[in-house]
Amino acid sequence: MTRDEKKQQTRKSLMDSALLLVGEGENFSNISLREVAKNAGVVPTAFYRHFKDMEELGLNLVDELGMMLRKLMRSARQSQLPAVELARNSVELYVRYVADHRTLFLFMSQCRTGGTPALRSGIRNELGFFATELATDIRQASSLPRIDTQDLEIISQLIITAVADTTIDILDQPENSLQLQELIEKTIKQLRVIFLGATLWESARKSSKTN
Amino acid sequence: MTRDEKKQQTRKSLMDSALLLVGEGENFSNISLREVAKNAGVVPTAFYRHFKDMEELGLNLVDELGMMLRKLMRSARQSQLPAVELARNSVELYVRYVADHRTLFLFMSQCRTGGTPALRSGIRNELGFFATELATDIRQASSLPRIDTQDLEIISQLIITAVADTTIDILDQPENSLQLQELIEKTIKQLRVIFLGATLWESARKSSKTN
Repeated sequence: MTRDEKKQQTRKSLMDSALLLVGEGENFSNISLREVAKNAGVVPTAFYRHFKDMEELGLNLVDELGMMLRKLMRSARQSQLPAVELARNSVELYVRYVADHRTLFLFMSQCRTGGTPALRSGIRNELGFFATELATDIRQASSLPRIDTQDLEIISQLIITAVADTTIDILDQPENSLQLQELIEKTIKQLRVIFLGATLWESARKSSKTN
Repeated sequence: MTRDEKKQQTRKSLMDSALLLVGEGENFSNISLREVAKNAGVVPTAFYRHFKDMEELGLNLVDELGMMLRKLMRSARQSQLPAVELARNSVELYVRYVADHRTLFLFMSQCRTGGTPALRSGIRNELGFFATELATDIRQASSLPRIDTQDLEIISQLIITAVADTTIDILDQPENSLQLQELIEKTIKQLRVIFLGATLWESARKSSKTN
């Protein structure tokens, strides 16, 4: 293994170690770099060769989250389903990604509200990019000629909010349980209500009685 | 002051002390009872006369949050505005409550996703009750004859989610700032999209093309 490869491996071990501690029930904001280094099998001084502090490690986890969300987006795009099936497919895909990357999404949920300002901002940005991509897809897939770009962005953010808000509930329910299935059905309905509202929305007439 | 009054006062001091620490940037899950006792001016053993542990103190803060949400509901009901103004009034009212009780709502946001399972469950329940109350009001105020009780509950939960999700962003923006105003306008639009979708929703025909 080259020196660079070794360095990359240690970096990854530190990040995985932090996620492991999150998975064991610790809040990310409470985890010390000493614990992380110990679990990764390195001395604390080695930690500093990769990250300035736990916040910087966290920002790197946010990058990893961003890559995960873009991967999810690509999967969703490949489905090429008719519009009526989009809501179900998107929610089921999200649930699958959360189940397969529990600790990363648990980290996202914790730091979305409880992290440092920089971490909150990072997660807000990633979810914002995700909403922008979604807005692009909706624009291409649907006939919503009366919604301007800004309003479509706002509606997409609402969709992202509705789905992201289920994350902790997904993590708290046993996989393949009735409660999880009910949560999925509930979220699909919520997305459909949003889509229905979008079909009626008219951006130009801001004081329109329709809105 | 009677012995009971003194006990109530110490209890309140401990809860206020925990909220103070949250306001200073600490994550609730990271606060020790030792810190809380110290800030409240009592010895740690005195803490145990009121709360078994920090989780129990947290559950009492959740009760306080519940009372705050019910107070907000009563304020909203007194407004008696026409339906078209409901979205704006509700959002502006929520922003005002968050601004006036910053640390309590910051606590809510942190523990919604990052607290112990019992705290998450407590907050989920309080927000659930709030959604049920909202569903009742919507039923009385609007003509939505084709939505059954279960679906109205699901739509109300979406409204609560959309508003609650703004909490951290409200707390992160300076009061009376342009960014806060934009956030308010954005949230009002999102509520209107949901209301519009609700007017089209038909519960009976689950596989209806309308949905």
